Amino acid sequence: MRNVVNRQDGEPMPKDVMDFFRASAGRWFSQRNSHHPAGRRFEGGRSELEITPLAPEDGRVAEICRLYRFEAAGVAGAVLVEWKGTIDRDSKTHTGRTILVVVPDAQDPAQGSILQDKPATEPLPARYRVGDDDVLTLSTTSNQGESEERLWFASPNLRLRTAIVRYPDGTRVTTFCSEVRRAEAAASKGERSQSQTTD
Amino acid sequence: MRNVVNRQDGEPMPKDVMDFFRASAGRWFSQRNSHHPAGRRFEGGRSELEITPLAPEDGRVAEICRLYRFEAAGVAGAVLVEWKGTIDRDSKTHTGRTILVVVPDAQDPAQGSILQDKPATEPLPARYRVGDDDVLTLSTTSNQGESEERLWFASPNLRLRTAIVRYPDGTRVTTFCSEVRRAEAAASKGERSQSQTTD
Repeated sequence: MRNVVNRQDGEPMPKDVMDFFRASAGRWFSQRNSHHPAGRRFEGGRSELEITPLAPEDGRVAEICRLYRFEAAGVAGAVLVEWKGTIDRDSKTHTGRTILVVVPDAQDPAQGSILQDKPATEPLPARYRVGDDDVLTLSTTSNQGESEERLWFASPNLRLRTAIVRYPDGTRVTTFCSEVRRAEAAASKGERSQSQTTD
Repeated sequence: MRNVVNRQDGEPMPKDVMDFFRASAGRWFSQRNSHHPAGRRFEGGRSELEITPLAPEDGRVAEICRLYRFEAAGVAGAVLVEWKGTIDRDSKTHTGRTILVVVPDAQDPAQGSILQDKPATEPLPARYRVGDDDVLTLSTTSNQGESEERLWFASPNLRLRTAIVRYPDGTRVTTFCSEVRRAEAAASKGERSQSQTTD
């Protein structure tokens, strides 16, 4: 894997969805704001994220493919995302983890399917697309609503993310996250520095 | 001008920078949040925006071209942006207006220059680019910092906007705006409805 922490501004940004996830590997501090346009409400929050790319051969990947009835041979890679966060005006800490499996379209690897473990209801794959401006767009449809998420790197150590979710009752919520990479001082998790890198 | 208010979801989104500004014509309610990653601070705000496309022949357009020493013949169009807004924890109302003049590159009209009236210091044009995902990216460089803004339509009546500004001292601020179109009940400004459309 490339040492993305040491990439400099001006170097080419990731062009491929697995490049994108490899560039996302590591720990991030995420600031989040959601807008509820109808009610004119804001909601803020903060999270710690840890993103770990997984090899196509990982056992969890094959299991998720079976759930969606996808051929494991088409998998380009996968990524484990773990988070721990808080929402303003709520003292509870929310934690979670998910695995995303990437299956590029045979005809056009700039787009394809994303299989997520623990699907909400029926296992319906999400879709991804990498634009010529290096923005990764993820689209999900389920009976709980539709979401469109866009992610891009402002620099190797600053990732931006927006999401719009439309619920079946017509309401919608837009969310913005600024994600700053954590410096990793040592190889072991226990010794990781809490300081932030600059970009 | 097309009646963008009545466009439906699923219709093609604007492909060209002037299409983009024409689709933006009208009044918008904008919710804004800024993140100051280093200080972990949030700042929220709300604005009313009014966006009015201008013809290339408008007298103000020729004047701005002279300021930047650009040929008026290359102008594709222009847009007048007016705003009135508030920032959380500040009772003052901030108002302003600016004109943006669009000069596509001769070789590739998907990108080009943006000339803004009242330039901060020397008249240095901004750059724009419309991606294959219909995101409009605006990049500005001056001795007061660098900014990159991305704008796109989640639907004809919901415009999303992100900006990242890097200051010469190394600090940076990221901003997200959700912009909801105001319904316009009548032709005259005075009779405009205050209600919001749904998308």
